[in-house]
Amino acid sequence: MESAAQSWIERVIALAVDNVRNGGGGPFASLVVKHGRVLAEGVNRVTATNDPTAHAEVVAIRAACRALGHYQLDGCEIYSSCEPCPMCLGAIYWARPARVCYAATAADAAGAGFDDSHIYRQIAVPHGERTIPMIALPAPAALAPFDAWRAKTDRKLY
Amino acid sequence: MESAAQSWIERVIALAVDNVRNGGGGPFASLVVKHGRVLAEGVNRVTATNDPTAHAEVVAIRAACRALGHYQLDGCEIYSSCEPCPMCLGAIYWARPARVCYAATAADAAGAGFDDSHIYRQIAVPHGERTIPMIALPAPAALAPFDAWRAKTDRKLY
Repeated sequence: MESAAQSWIERVIALAVDNVRNGGGGPFASLVVKHGRVLAEGVNRVTATNDPTAHAEVVAIRAACRALGHYQLDGCEIYSSCEPCPMCLGAIYWARPARVCYAATAADAAGAGFDDSHIYRQIAVPHGERTIPMIALPAPAALAPFDAWRAKTDRKLY
Repeated sequence: MESAAQSWIERVIALAVDNVRNGGGGPFASLVVKHGRVLAEGVNRVTATNDPTAHAEVVAIRAACRALGHYQLDGCEIYSSCEPCPMCLGAIYWARPARVCYAATAADAAGAGFDDSHIYRQIAVPHGERTIPMIALPAPAALAPFDAWRAKTDRKLY
């Protein structure tokens, strides 16, 4: 791996350590880099902001998109102190950066009490049998939002 | 399914239709309900706010947590106009509501051009071979954030 990447990964690890020491939240940080420049930093802010979605990657992606004025991270790289959880993986796919590099693994995180493997496993479980049941409720109007979408001539695709 | 749930699902479908018609964004909406009362509404705001994470469920979860002043949705139900994508599924697991009910299926959404099945499939692909490569970068300090976390006596678990 090129030395620039190694340098970013060391920086993001230091950010994660700082986030713990200054009481910001969990031991996680993320950087969005474009053309060798940091677009945005993110650290875990779940407890500080009462926001369960404020994982480092989500915080960094949102900030980078604000900086770019766009909802896509074309040509960007994400550096994370730890392997992304399923929520952050999904956020990464919607933001579409070029690649993601991370330091600690999900197993390392689990060893520190942050185990997201149960979420990955839940994806394979039938909806109604999940630990949080997901129930399909048939509704006559279920497709109405999509019909409205197709009928809208000035819709903005994403 | 009880009639209250059916009523919430009809309301959330109408919200999704409204979001398209008033130009708010994609054809999706979500409600967080607790003890028969709406805590928060969320609609898709990806293009309106340049935020790829602003899916209806994430918007609703964040707003409900703000309303509760807590990062968990204990005893809450989420009603969504459509089956959650992988990012929203992860957000739901972190927020821990009691259950999720939805109207349209992922297949319905795919038929309207919103196909998240590729993300679900990517989860099973080895990291380096994913369409967005995820690269583990060994770093000597990789575990330092977790060491700092364990050493912090006043850490706030989540």
